[in-house]
Parts: sequence; C-alpha cells; structure tokens
Amino acid sequence: MKRRIKEILSWYGSDNPGTLTNLARILNHGKLGGTGKLVILPVDQGVEHGPGRTYVPNPPSFDPRYHFELAIEAGLNAYAAPLGFLEAAARDYAGDLPLILKLNNRENLSSDKDPLQAVTGSVEAALRLGCAAIGYTVYPGSLQRVSMYERLQALTEEAKRHGLVVVVWSYPRGTDISKDGETALDVSAYAAQIAAQLGAHILKVKPPADCVEQAEAKKVYEKAGLQTATLAQRIEHVMNSAFDGRRITIFSGGAARGTDEVLEEIRGIRDGGGFGSIMGRNAFQRERTEALALLDQVVKVYQGKL
Amino acid sequence: MKRRIKEILSWYGSDNPGTLTNLARILNHGKLGGTGKLVILPVDQGVEHGPGRTYVPNPPSFDPRYHFELAIEAGLNAYAAPLGFLEAAARDYAGDLPLILKLNNRENLSSDKDPLQAVTGSVEAALRLGCAAIGYTVYPGSLQRVSMYERLQALTEEAKRHGLVVVVWSYPRGTDISKDGETALDVSAYAAQIAAQLGAHILKVKPPADCVEQAEAKKVYEKAGLQTATLAQRIEHVMNSAFDGRRITIFSGGAARGTDEVLEEIRGIRDGGGFGSIMGRNAFQRERTEALALLDQVVKVYQGKL
Amino acid sequence: MKRRIKEILSWYGSDNPGTLTNLARILNHGKLGGTGKLVILPVDQGVEHGPGRTYVPNPPSFDPRYHFELAIEAGLNAYAAPLGFLEAAARDYAGDLPLILKLNNRENLSSDKDPLQAVTGSVEAALRLGCAAIGYTVYPGSLQRVSMYERLQALTEEAKRHGLVVVVWSYPRGTDISKDGETALDVSAYAAQIAAQLGAHILKVKPPADCVEQAEAKKVYEKAGLQTATLAQRIEHVMNSAFDGRRITIFSGGAARGTDEVLEEIRGIRDGGGFGSIMGRNAFQRERTEALALLDQVVKVYQGKL
Amino acid sequence: MKRRIKEILSWYGSDNPGTLTNLARILNHGKLGGTGKLVILPVDQGVEHGPGRTYVPNPPSFDPRYHFELAIEAGLNAYAAPLGFLEAAARDYAGDLPLILKLNNRENLSSDKDPLQAVTGSVEAALRLGCAAIGYTVYPGSLQRVSMYERLQALTEEAKRHGLVVVVWSYPRGTDISKDGETALDVSAYAAQIAAQLGAHILKVKPPADCVEQAEAKKVYEKAGLQTATLAQRIEHVMNSAFDGRRITIFSGGAARGTDEVLEEIRGIRDGGGFGSIMGRNAFQRERTEALALLDQVVKVYQGKL
Amino acid sequence: MKRRIKEILSWYGSDNPGTLTNLARILNHGKLGGTGKLVILPVDQGVEHGPGRTYVPNPPSFDPRYHFELAIEAGLNAYAAPLGFLEAAARDYAGDLPLILKLNNRENLSSDKDPLQAVTGSVEAALRLGCAAIGYTVYPGSLQRVSMYERLQALTEEAKRHGLVVVVWSYPRGTDISKDGETALDVSAYAAQIAAQLGAHILKVKPPADCVEQAEAKKVYEKAGLQTATLAQRIEHVMNSAFDGRRITIFSGGAARGTDEVLEEIRGIRDGGGFGSIMGRNAFQRERTEALALLDQVVKVYQGKL
Repeated sequence: MKRRIKEILSWYGSDNPGTLTNLARILNHGKLGGTGKLVILPVDQGVEHGPGRTYVPNPPSFDPRYHFELAIEAGLNAYAAPLGFLEAAARDYAGDLPLILKLNNRENLSSDKDPLQAVTGSVEAALRLGCAAIGYTVYPGSLQRVSMYERLQALTEEAKRHGLVVVVWSYPRGTDISKDGETALDVSAYAAQIAAQLGAHILKVKPPADCVEQAEAKKVYEKAGLQTATLAQRIEHVMNSAFDGRRITIFSGGAARGTDEVLEEIRGIRDGGGFGSIMGRNAFQRERTEALALLDQVVKVYQGKL
Repeated sequence: MKRRIKEILSWYGSDNPGTLTNLARILNHGKLGGTGKLVILPVDQGVEHGPGRTYVPNPPSFDPRYHFELAIEAGLNAYAAPLGFLEAAARDYAGDLPLILKLNNRENLSSDKDPLQAVTGSVEAALRLGCAAIGYTVYPGSLQRVSMYERLQALTEEAKRHGLVVVVWSYPRGTDISKDGETALDVSAYAAQIAAQLGAHILKVKPPADCVEQAEAKKVYEKAGLQTATLAQRIEHVMNSAFDGRRITIFSGGAARGTDEVLEEIRGIRDGGGFGSIMGRNAFQRERTEALALLDQVVKVYQGKL
Repeated sequence: MKRRIKEILSWYGSDNPGTLTNLARILNHGKLGGTGKLVILPVDQGVEHGPGRTYVPNPPSFDPRYHFELAIEAGLNAYAAPLGFLEAAARDYAGDLPLILKLNNRENLSSDKDPLQAVTGSVEAALRLGCAAIGYTVYPGSLQRVSMYERLQALTEEAKRHGLVVVVWSYPRGTDISKDGETALDVSAYAAQIAAQLGAHILKVKPPADCVEQAEAKKVYEKAGLQTATLAQRIEHVMNSAFDGRRITIFSGGAARGTDEVLEEIRGIRDGGGFGSIMGRNAFQRERTEALALLDQVVKVYQGKL
Repeated sequence: MKRRIKEILSWYGSDNPGTLTNLARILNHGKLGGTGKLVILPVDQGVEHGPGRTYVPNPPSFDPRYHFELAIEAGLNAYAAPLGFLEAAARDYAGDLPLILKLNNRENLSSDKDPLQAVTGSVEAALRLGCAAIGYTVYPGSLQRVSMYERLQALTEEAKRHGLVVVVWSYPRGTDISKDGETALDVSAYAAQIAAQLGAHILKVKPPADCVEQAEAKKVYEKAGLQTATLAQRIEHVMNSAFDGRRITIFSGGAARGTDEVLEEIRGIRDGGGFGSIMGRNAFQRERTEALALLDQVVKVYQGKL
Repeated sequence: MKRRIKEILSWYGSDNPGTLTNLARILNHGKLGGTGKLVILPVDQGVEHGPGRTYVPNPPSFDPRYHFELAIEAGLNAYAAPLGFLEAAARDYAGDLPLILKLNNRENLSSDKDPLQAVTGSVEAALRLGCAAIGYTVYPGSLQRVSMYERLQALTEEAKRHGLVVVVWSYPRGTDISKDGETALDVSAYAAQIAAQLGAHILKVKPPADCVEQAEAKKVYEKAGLQTATLAQRIEHVMNSAFDGRRITIFSGGAARGTDEVLEEIRGIRDGGGFGSIMGRNAFQRERTEALALLDQVVKVYQGKL
C-alpha cells in the first residue's frame, strides 16, 4: 500500500481492521487512489430538494443506475446515496466502487428553523448492500441536535463494531445561527471539531466564508492574528480543527455553478490542506460528457496537475 | 414466468428470494396476472372515515368477508386492509389471494394539520396471517414525518428480512402544503421519490393535478419545458420520479365517482406508464354486480382492451 | 359445547386455540353460559373516580373480595379490575370465574381535554394471575390516541401470542368531539369499528344516543334512510359496525340509576342484537341483596325471560 | 411466626414466596417486630431539599453511616434511602436491618407545578445491595403522572419477579389540585387507593386533613354521613380505601415539630387503624439521644403502651 | 498499597473489585499517586466552546496527542475527553495514564436556559479504549434534568457492572437559578450531594462562592451559625455534603487566569479538605513549558509543599 495511505490509516488507531480495510478501499479507489485525496459523488437531493429540481435538468439522472455509472466512469472514490437509490442497483454494480449508505434524510416539504433528519436506513442495511461506510448528517446548533447526536452515537458504535467507516456531514443551522453564520469560519471549524469528537472517520463541512459568527471566537482570532483572507487560509483553520489535520475532511460544493468557479474553489481547498470534495449537483446535473470533463479537472487539481 | 414479470423482478436486486416470491405472487395473481399491471382493493376507510360513511351506502360491505370475495371474484391482484378486517377472515380465504396488512391507520375524529398515523399491526402479524406484503402510509410534509419515516424504516427492515413486500402510500400534507398542493405535480412526484428512497417495493400516490406547488420546482419545469397538460404526461413525470419507472407505482382513485370519469382517469394512468390502480370506495360502495362490472372494465383498460 | 358458542368461536379464525379456550371460558361461564350472551362486572372506578365516590355508597365494597363474590354469586361471565384489586384476591378465588386484567387506567385528579390512560399492568401479570383476558381503554379522537393505539398494538400482539382474549373499551373523546357527540350514533359505531379493526375480541362501547356528530355521516345516514329512533335500531347499527355482528360487542351502563331504567336499556341492547352488558356502579353500589336481584333480572332479560 | 404477621402475609396471595419473605423480614424486624405495626426511617431529603436544610441542623447526619446506626439503634423496621446513601454503607451493615432502595427522586432546584421524579436506581441495584424492598414516589394529579405510573409498572413487575417488596409514596399534586387539597381527606384516600391498585405492598400517604377537595366526593360523604372530625376517623377512611385495610399503609410525618405534636398525631394514626409511620426529619434532625428518645416513644404508642 | 488509598477504597464497599482496581489506578497514578489527592486534565472545551476559542491561544493543542502528552509529562492522575479525542490517540499512549471517557457533551451554538447534554459515547466505547472511568455532566435545576439523571442511571449501572469508575460533573443551572446562584454555597453543596446520591465515585463541582441562593437554606445556615467567609470554610461544607467527605470530590478551575490566583484557590480547596482539581483551560491554553510549571506548582500545593 502507498505510504501516504498507511500514514492516514495510522491516525485511526482505535478502529478495528475491518474499518481500516473499508477506509483503505475508499482511499485506494479511482483516479485519486493512493494519493490520500478523494472525490465522492453524493446523490441525496432527490429527497432533500425533490425529484423535479434535482433530475429534470438532466433527465437520464432519474435512473438510479446513472449515478453508479457516473461515479465509476469518472473514477471517483465512492458514491453516497439513500437506501432506495443504493438498493436499486447495488447488485448490478457489486464490487465496482465503494458505497456509502446515507442513513438520514430530510425532505423540504416543510420548513423548520431547527431541523431534524429522519433515520431512513441502518447499519444492517449498509452491510447487506456491501457498503464501505455509513453517512449521517448532523445540524449543530439546531434545537433538535441532541436527538441527532444520540442517534449518531448508537449508529457509530454499531458501524465501528461491524467494520464500517463513518462519514458525518456537519451542517450548522438553527434559531441562534444567522444565515451567513452557517458558513462562517468559526462555525465551519466548530462543525469539523464536533464531527471529529463524535467519532467520525471522514468529516464533510462547507467551505468557510470570510466572516466570524460568534463574538468570543472573533476576539480570540483577532488576538492571535489569525489570517483568514484567502480560502486556503480558512481551510487551514478548519483542518486544524479536524484534530490538526488527522481526520479526513472533505468539502461540499453547493449549488451548480460554472466550471471556473468550481475549480477555483477546489484549488483553495487543496492549498489549505483539505482532503477532497464531495460533489453532487455540479456533477450529475450537467450532461454526462460535461460532467465527466469537469470531474476530470477536479481530480487533476487534487493531483496537483491543474 | 412471464418475461415482463421477470423483468420487473430484476429491478429489485437487493431483495431476498422470499420478497421476490411474494412480489411475484402479487404480480401473477388475478386477471392481470403476468401483465405487469395490477389492481388492488384497499379497505381501510372504516377506520379512516368511520363505518357510517364507508359501509352504509352498500350494507353487505359491513361484513369483512365481503371484501375478500369482491377482490377474488373481480380477479384483482391483492386485497389490503387493517389488522381486524384481515384477522376476521384470513383463515376462510387462506391461499385465495395475496393479502396486504395495512400497518398504520388514522381515524378522523380529530383534525390535525400535521397528522400522524398510529401503528396498529406488525410484521409478525402479517406473517401469521399469511400476507404477501405490509402496507404503510407516510405524510411527507407533516411535522410528524420524522416519526412516520423512522417507524417505517424499522418495519421495512424487518419485513425485508422476513421476505415480505413493502407497499407505501405516500400522501403529502401538513402546515406548509396548500390544499391544492397535496396533489400538485411536483408534490406527487416528490411523494413517489420519497417512498422509493425509503425502500418501498410498491408505491402508491395520488394522480397528479395540473399545478405546481413549489416555486423552485416551477422554475426548473419551465426552463426544461416539461409538458404537463394531460394526465398521461403528468403520470409520466411521476413514473420518472419513481426511479425512472423501475419501482412499481400505482395510483389511488379517491372518492366514489361515475364510471366514465373513473375509466378516463385509468386510461391516463395507463398511458403515462403507471402500473395500476388501488381502488376502494369506487368498488365496494357500489352494489356488488355494478362493482364487478366496473372492476372488469378497469382491468380491461389495463389489458389495453378498452 | 353449545352450537352457538361454536359459531361465535368460528368468527375468530386467526386466533390460536389458547385464545379460543379462554374466550370459551368466558362465554360458557355463569348463568348465561352457552347462550352467547354475557354480563361482566367491571370495578375500576376506585381509580377512575376515587374511593370516596365509588365505595362509600356501599361500604363492604371497599374490600377487594366483595367484588369477586358478587360476580360469582350473581353468576356473571367475568370480573374485570386493575392489577391491585385482582392481586388482592386472585389466589382466594382461583378458578372460580374468568378474570379480566384491566391494563390501563386514569385517575380524575386532573382534567385533560385529550386524555391518555397509563398502562398499569402487563400481559405477564395477567398470565400469573390466571386471567382469561386483558382489558384496555382507547379514547378515539383524543390527541393522545396514537400513543394509546400503539401501546394496545403491542399488548394485543403479546396477549394473542400467549392465548389471552383482548377486551377493548372504546370511548371517544377529545378536543374535536362535543360532549353529546361522545355517545352519538355515528361516533359509537365508529368506536366499535375502531376497536374491531385494532384486533379486539370483545368490544365495549356506550349505548348510542339518537344524535349524529359528524356532518358527513349525517348526510350518508339520511340518504340511506337509516332508522335510528329506537335504541334497538341504533344498537343494530353499532353491531353492523362490529364486523356485521361478528365481533362480540357489549355495552356499558354508566352512572347508577333506577332498576326500571336499567332494564329498559338492557332490552334495547338485546333487541338490537347486542351481546351483553358490562355493569359496574349499577351493581356494586347497591346493597348486596338488591344488587343480586337486579343482576338476576338483567340476566333474565338476556335469557329472553323478562 | 406471629399469627398477626401470618394474617398480614395472607393478604398478598398473588406474590411469590420471595416477596413474602422480604415482607416478613420488614414486619418481624426491630422493636415492633411481630406486632404488625412498623416504623421506617426514610432519608431522601438530601436530594429533595438539599444538604444544607437537611443535615446542618444535626451535622453528624451528613455521614451516611449515621442513618443506618440510628435506625438500628432505635429498633426500627427498615431504612429507606436513595442509591448513593445505601451504596455508601450497605456492606458495613449488611444483614443488620432491612433496606429500601428509593428508586426515584426529585431535587427542588426548579419549581414544577406538575412535577416528575427521575428514576435514579434499579431493581438490579436493590438486589445487589441486599435490599428487601424498592421505594417509589408517584404524584397523582400531576400532568406527568402517566410517565410516573408506567415507570412504576415496569419496576413493580420486575421487583415482584425478583422477590422484592414494593413501597409506594403517593403524594397528590399538580395544576388542578389546591395546596390544601394535597392532604384533603378525599385526596389522601384517593392516593392510597391508587397506590394499592398499582400493586404496591406498602403504601405511604400523608395524614389526611379535615377538608374535602372534590365536589363530587363531598356530596357522597355528606349523603353517607361520613364522620371526619378526628384524625382517627379520617385515618379510618384512608385505611378503608387501602383495600379495606388489607394493604399495609403507613403515614409520613412531615416537617420537624415538637415531640407532643408528633406523638399526638401518631396516636391518631394508630387509633384509626394505620400500620405505622415513616419518620425522617423528626428523627434525624434531632440530636441523636433526643431522636432515640422520641422514636422510642413512637414505638411505644404503636405498642399501645403510651 | 498506601494506607490512605486503602482507606479511600474502603468507602466504596458496594463496588466490585473491578471498579476498585480502576479507582486505585487513578489514585495511584502520577506525582500525587498514593497521597489521596488528585489532579485531572479535562479537554472537552473543543465541543463546549468551539475549537477557535479553545485551541487558538496555544495552537499545538489542536492535536489530540498534545493533551495525552501534557497530562503524562505533568504527572497528572488522569486525562478526560470526549470520544473523538480519546479514539485519536488511545492506542499510541495505551497504558501510559488512566483515561476518562466523557460520555455527554453540549456545544454552545444555541443557547438554552434549561440545557441538556447529548450522550456521545458509551460504556462499551470506554471499555474498548481501555478507560478507567466514564465521565458525565448533570445540570441540577435544568428542566431537562430528569432525562439527564435517567440516562446517567443506566450508564452508571452498566459502568459499575463492568468495573469502571463513574465521575460526575454536577453543574446547577436552569430557569429558576440565578447566574450567581450557580456557584452559591448552598447550590454547590447541593450539587455535590446530588452527584453522590446518584452513585458517582468521583464528584466534580465548582468552588463555592460566598453567597446563598435558596431562602430556606439561608435560614438554616444562619441558625446554625455556619462559617462561610473563607473558601476553605465553604469547601468544608461542600465536602460534608459529599457524604461527610467519604466521596472523592474535586473542583474545577474555570476560565484561564493568572498563576497566583489559581494557586490561591487551590490552597483553599486543599485546606477545606477537597481531594483535588480538574484543570483544563488553565493548563492547555498556556504554552507547554508554562503549563508544566503551573501544574507542578498545583501538585506541590496538594503535596503540602507550597
């Protein structure tokens, strides 16, 4: 195995060989295999935003097989989706790429200031579908967070016992967090720290914006003279908050945007020490050839070739 | 086995042979057996609307045996009802037609803007009664949806482990959904997607009306130039949202209406690629001979003969 | 065994021989044994109304043994009470008459528009006390009904697995039901239907008054020309709603009243096809000799002798 | 064994020999052993009122061993305390006197009109500490009572299965009960009835005051001409409500008071047929010699010597 | 083993040898090993206050290994942290010092007057990580305290069965407690008593301020002439409230402050009979050499050398 992968695995000294094997499967798969960098395709927007907004821009994407094939052809490290999407094609592509069963979800047919996701899958389901990992979203700051953390605690314990990897999406929101604050630097760093302390192996947070939400954090940053002007500098602070970089942390892309804008952001993530990206709408809402071209460029950025 | 049935079964590659056997039992039963189309008789209105409104229009329907016999004589694919109705006659008609135990219910003696159904049966009960499937209603958009999804998750996991089929009624409602919105095109498509992602084998939604509820969906539809004028076009969008047609999706009939109106709608469902109908009040609230005549016409529409 | 009892047992084709044996014990016991009619003594008013209001009118009734003896001497079919009352004398009268452990209760030290009963016993307790049945109250229409139905679902499943009979008291109430509506014809019929669909073997509802609560039910009744002027006619509609009379349904007596009034009502229940009565305060709040005399007359009405 | 004890045990015919053995241990222990009367030392005020108010008046009482020794030296029947206090000395005094593990508690750092106690111990803990009984408080009338009753139901079932005695403190309170009403005659009687119906072996209520809370109870009392002027008369009504005296019922002492006042009340309890007292603050907040003197007098009252 | 340690262990007569062994491991470890005094390093502020405020003042502290090494080099008795921090380095330092898995946590991204901590670890996790103890925070006075106490009850029972030590952080807060009241003398004493009664082996409270929150406590203190002017006097009252000093009680340091101020407080704790300190921010937010110097002085104070 590549030295860098061995190094990364060494940070997870409390996990059993089963979990390390699955973590290695993800890190060694696809075009970025062995580099320690990773790009994951997540497709849970059918539940999160509805099928109209999600698939209509690129109709072939209605078919659950489309996403498996996109992730495989693009040479990504893994594909993450809810129960239904994985069940619909896991047998057809068994062994073709590492899968992540997204265990909780939330549809947007009602608006909640302090949201809670419903658990819609299980560790047992992840195992019978041949997944390498479970995925789970927490909303730090939501008044419902205790429920979310405690469900995660139980699932994490069970997943680790069964040799699975735990991927946590950490998205702060809630009554006491301003809209801008959701991606503020201190809040993104906080999101990473929380996911890491909850025992996640792979953390997923949003790229931090150049603002600070909590007054007490601002004071400390200013006193320490923390540099936050560039995305790379901000990513570095988030990576520090991920156990000084010893927890694999990847960043989400958000709404579909132009290629240049996407690549610019990827470079910031890479330069700040981020491990990679999780890219959904920017990938599967483009026509297939375009999507493959973009993903290839993203991979090249992480390979340091672009 | 008919080729079409084998094809449909091939979409459920993550299920065990037990579940496929029960799914095949439903698809191969009755006059539509082997066509891949299906018509199901559901009788849970005694709980949902009360016995007065439900059975008084056709008094023999008070008797639980009536519905078994109606479904058998009409050559339908399956009969769905709550615990009490199935327990009352399952021994008498054991092996005569596939049964679906409706596992949750809600009476209308109180009005809730954000309703929750009570779980009134179990997988164990379905097994001891010889059922082929469990049925379960979710209300996407209800503030109580997390409870409903999580109960379903547990029941689904248990049902699949025991070789049962899972049928999900997906009826959006709640504080943030307008009355018209409950059957809006985007909402119906969303309902189908949610049920499919929750792992249902058979989805049941309402026929979509020609309106769109969510502003963001409207924008996407308009940009893509989605055709929505005819019921068949709208059904097609719903079927796309059911994993590009790879999840059996059937449509409910609603309140009792005239025969022509019913058949017209059935044709729209068929032409849009729907798999069939679940028809309750339009069947059992008619006098028996009339009901059998109507159901025969419905079957003929799905057979392409009418 | 009497033919009528065999006929009744035949309606419970999904139950195991253990449950049928206990149902037969109840139906074959006492003066009405073998007739298919039954009268049950329930004494849970000590909890529901407090000991002052309950026992002071007839002080010997403070003693738990009093009620066992009253039920035995009157030749009733069964005696129903909460845990404490049964535990206090079950050994002394073991085998003397069928017992029903009332599994949930509610004291009236606080007023709730949408009440919930607490589960105060268990199936295990019913078995160790030698009971033939468990009893359980639901409040259809209460905002707490989901909890009540789901607790009942679990208890019912467990009781049936262990060969016990399930008796359900179905008393509609709640924010959206008017005071008169609690005993309206449509609501009583609804109460019976709900209990039957929940899987009860024996249903207990209040005698229906000559009024209709829900507008939609009223419309259907009027269209069908349903006769509701006499108690017998109304009882008949309730019996229809109890699976066309195929679920044993008995009626409660309410507050203590004069003998003539009581007997008049019993005749209405009998003539409408009701299976019997559950009579508490009208029995144990009278002095013992009077109570025995009244109960004897009640039995005679059901025997068709009065 | 003394005849009176055998008689008392005969009232608990549904309990297993394990529970009877523990009940006998309590009834046969100490100076009142064999008389059927009992005095218990309860020390849960450290949690209920805080250590300042509880132990400062008599500083040696900070030490958990103090209370074991006080109860032993005074020749009381049993000692009741929360987990911590029992764990701190159970090994040192193993076998020296029967222990009651108080399983739920509530601190007064917040005020709740409708309180709930937290479960802070378990049946397993009671067994490993060598206790003869578990103790549990219910608040009839509190809006939280359903939770309290249902937790008790589970604990009671488990305790009886494992041969333990169940002692229930029944203290009505809540939004709909007036301050005076908490000890009104009808309410105290109601409290006793509820605890007995919940399956308690030993009931603990407050001595009833000469007032009536519920209008309907008042009417019945007046009609029956119930005598309520003396404490003994009121105790008698409570004892009647405790299954006509067939459930051991003891009375609490309340805040610390003068010796004469205490003894006067004890005589009332005795003369009304009460089984004894549970005396905490009046015992351990006095200096040790004084406390022993008072407890000796209390015992003498119950022995009929004072 | 040192006599003092044997004496301390003798207070825990209800625990199994497994728990005593782990308690001895903590008491015998580090520079204070064998003295009966102890200093613990807790690092859960990354979750409680966010990584910015916590680690930025001393950047090497972002790394989870930093804290293990600080505690080891300083010769402290144990290191306490949440799941993630322990998992990140437990294998690297296995056997180097006793670990305490902090089982519940709360981030400050929302403000709750009546807070609840989420359970984020388990006894099983503590065992697989080789911990000597579990740690748990309760908020006496919070309206959510029942949940917190009951979760603790279950975890405590499980931990004791598996030979672990239970450390309880007891921090009063909630609607009915004033800001000053949170560290008032009576409230701190109450906090210690509650943790002890809940079955904790080691209690952690805040050093009590010279004020009294509850009127009834004030009255008792004044009547008894309790001396409260010096910290040592107040610590003594807290120690009395910890079962007359028979439960190991340590005190937290609070926000980072100057060295003299810290040492002054430590002397007060020592002179009042406290067992030691738990010191987080005052340790790890200082540069490493300074931190080691301060901790050495703290140890010397407890050794009576300073």
